[in-house]
Amino acid sequence: MALIVHKYGGTSMGSTERIRNVAKRVAKWARAGHQMVVVPSAMSGETNRLLGLAKELQPERITSSVMRELDMIASTGEQVSVGLLSIALQAEGLECVSYAGWQVPIKTDSSFTKARIQAIDDARVRADLAAGKVVVITGFQGVDPEGNITTLGRGGSDTSAVAVAAAMKAAECLIYTDVDGVYTTDPRIVPEARRLHTISFEEMLEMASLGSKVLQIRSVEFAGKYKVPLRVLSSFTPWDIDIDEEAKSGTLITFEEDENMEQAVVSGIAFNRDEAKITVMGVPDKPGLAYQILGAVADANIDVDVIIQNVSHDGKTDFSFTVQGVDYSRALDLLKSKVVPATGAAEVVGDPKICKVSIVGIGMKSHVGIAAKMFRTLSEEGINIQMISTSEIKTSVVIDEKYMELAVRALHKAFDLEQENANS
Amino acid sequence: MALIVHKYGGTSMGSTERIRNVAKRVAKWARAGHQMVVVPSAMSGETNRLLGLAKELQPERITSSVMRELDMIASTGEQVSVGLLSIALQAEGLECVSYAGWQVPIKTDSSFTKARIQAIDDARVRADLAAGKVVVITGFQGVDPEGNITTLGRGGSDTSAVAVAAAMKAAECLIYTDVDGVYTTDPRIVPEARRLHTISFEEMLEMASLGSKVLQIRSVEFAGKYKVPLRVLSSFTPWDIDIDEEAKSGTLITFEEDENMEQAVVSGIAFNRDEAKITVMGVPDKPGLAYQILGAVADANIDVDVIIQNVSHDGKTDFSFTVQGVDYSRALDLLKSKVVPATGAAEVVGDPKICKVSIVGIGMKSHVGIAAKMFRTLSEEGINIQMISTSEIKTSVVIDEKYMELAVRALHKAFDLEQENANS
Repeated sequence: MALIVHKYGGTSMGSTERIRNVAKRVAKWARAGHQMVVVPSAMSGETNRLLGLAKELQPERITSSVMRELDMIASTGEQVSVGLLSIALQAEGLECVSYAGWQVPIKTDSSFTKARIQAIDDARVRADLAAGKVVVITGFQGVDPEGNITTLGRGGSDTSAVAVAAAMKAAECLIYTDVDGVYTTDPRIVPEARRLHTISFEEMLEMASLGSKVLQIRSVEFAGKYKVPLRVLSSFTPWDIDIDEEAKSGTLITFEEDENMEQAVVSGIAFNRDEAKITVMGVPDKPGLAYQILGAVADANIDVDVIIQNVSHDGKTDFSFTVQGVDYSRALDLLKSKVVPATGAAEVVGDPKICKVSIVGIGMKSHVGIAAKMFRTLSEEGINIQMISTSEIKTSVVIDEKYMELAVRALHKAFDLEQENANS
Repeated sequence: MALIVHKYGGTSMGSTERIRNVAKRVAKWARAGHQMVVVPSAMSGETNRLLGLAKELQPERITSSVMRELDMIASTGEQVSVGLLSIALQAEGLECVSYAGWQVPIKTDSSFTKARIQAIDDARVRADLAAGKVVVITGFQGVDPEGNITTLGRGGSDTSAVAVAAAMKAAECLIYTDVDGVYTTDPRIVPEARRLHTISFEEMLEMASLGSKVLQIRSVEFAGKYKVPLRVLSSFTPWDIDIDEEAKSGTLITFEEDENMEQAVVSGIAFNRDEAKITVMGVPDKPGLAYQILGAVADANIDVDVIIQNVSHDGKTDFSFTVQGVDYSRALDLLKSKVVPATGAAEVVGDPKICKVSIVGIGMKSHVGIAAKMFRTLSEEGINIQMISTSEIKTSVVIDEKYMELAVRALHKAFDLEQENANS
């Protein structure tokens, strides 16, 4: 008997048959006595279809006015989903009502296509729950102070669900998706990869930002900020499995550091092959150098990830950083045409064939020698480390792309991640 | 230099290529100095697609709660259209903003799937027009006092456009559609049928209700009530035809009885083959008879059109009426099972193979002998008249379905409708 938020992804909502299954699952939870709020995504493919139509018509320059219309268009995918799911729930015999973001309302700023939630007024939803209704709310969207429809960016329905759960102080927010939880690493690369029963919020944040696509990173930040117990679980289990079993399945993202969690030093191996490395070579080492280089890159709206500056020799240094693969050519051109002349650097070289591999674990805060073990493991496999970056709970290395699978497998084994109580 | 409302149907919005043409046409009008409000329908097929998905999920009993969700779903078709058209207009270099019904707001009652517009707040739209923007508003929908999305029923976008034009006192409301105006009758049946340059509101109302599908009947009622000059014209002329030529094309629905209009006694021939006739025979003629029969029919939510009660013989009479073809079997069953036992009627007979043919003309108000000429014409063709119904500006007859084309052609010729100044 608790207030529970369910979120279903686009694949789970991908056909009327699947929507019917979602309705049966939600009905099971409602009949068990829970107050249910459900946040479904658009049917899979629908958002792409809608934005594809818009793309055929849009002007070359995407102004804020055009982005406003993109949100007007894209938000309809979720509106159709809530209507369909609400109808399916009524066919299951439940009382149910759906709301678009503006009807709740879910208030956001006016950053069209990437708005941020500012407040949620839950009075209407609470009244419905008190009246015994299931409430279905559109993901991915809200309304700005001027009454314009906004969207939260790709994967925004995760954030919507967590934000609703936070606003309503839900007992738990269950994210039903096409994987059955968070793994120690991608099972397609390491068949021995193991599903984690729990993962700390901070670890999940690193896993999400390092390329694990299970949850949108902003939803994890949101869950962390408001301490929303979050569970990732599979929407492909039969809808009629035992509710107690279902309630314990998947991976729980927690905020309390219990003893079990302390045992794991490294919880998982994340990787990202969608990065490219750029090095500005032989640049005169003067104060303000980093800003001179990265300021120009930031002005071009290019995100920089790992940054390395080596000690200088003869007053000159090499400055390296990584960018997203899609920004690589643009970043390289920019550096050659603007930064090299301005800084007096010798040259700029780039390498798109790199990847980043990271070990993540909250236990690294209190354990020494973890990074050293990582470097030794890679060394034993003959893998050259090009860049290193560390934080309190992760160590990342940039290596040649072709060694990625080898590195992930070797590290997974070295840290005994296939064992339930690994590296304790 | 005037405030003009354009309405585009689903076929005109049927593809991105067509939406681009709509944008170019609207841009032409805006560049000529007009303040433009545009009301597009959903892309053709979209509303059916959405409601088809809903139908796969809906419970047997369609409650008001289910209908609320149908509106939530169906309204998205128009929302996508306004977003796409607004983007296309911006690509044409115009400033533009789109609004869903709830954003204007277009206020309606809470009759989901067939709501009626109660008020339109035009402050927001006026401010945009004053700022030089084209405003694109969703057709077919509004918002009820509780903030629920409502839709106006099939063809509701015509009504939306007329209502917006009425609220804003637009100089003219142009309904762009896939026919180029209102004809004396259907050109597929009478090749000599002639496009009317003008038609009176009352005639249009009769033509619309008698089966001419050019405009939704409620939009004509609305235009009549608020005296909105309404023009039906083709969206398939090239977008770049001369604007003065375009402004005079199609058919204007007028409210002032000018001399030209007085000349035409009969303006057009309407017909409807989608009706069926039912006769309750040998029913004891007592006060309350009509109510006894039609009350039961109305309770079953079946619309009745032509009603005839003949004089009685030996205290018994025959009572005939027509219903929509889709309601025929249900009405017949109802009468046999309930009305015959209750009234002591002899029997009930039905005939689905009938049609209704009507002559419509505002001049009939002041001219005698028009109905007689109609009956003579049909008689000369050997067509038996089964039922007759008259109003101030129309005379309808029910005849055997197989004579429909013959009757329409003969009447079109008898009233000289192929001539520009017919039956003056």
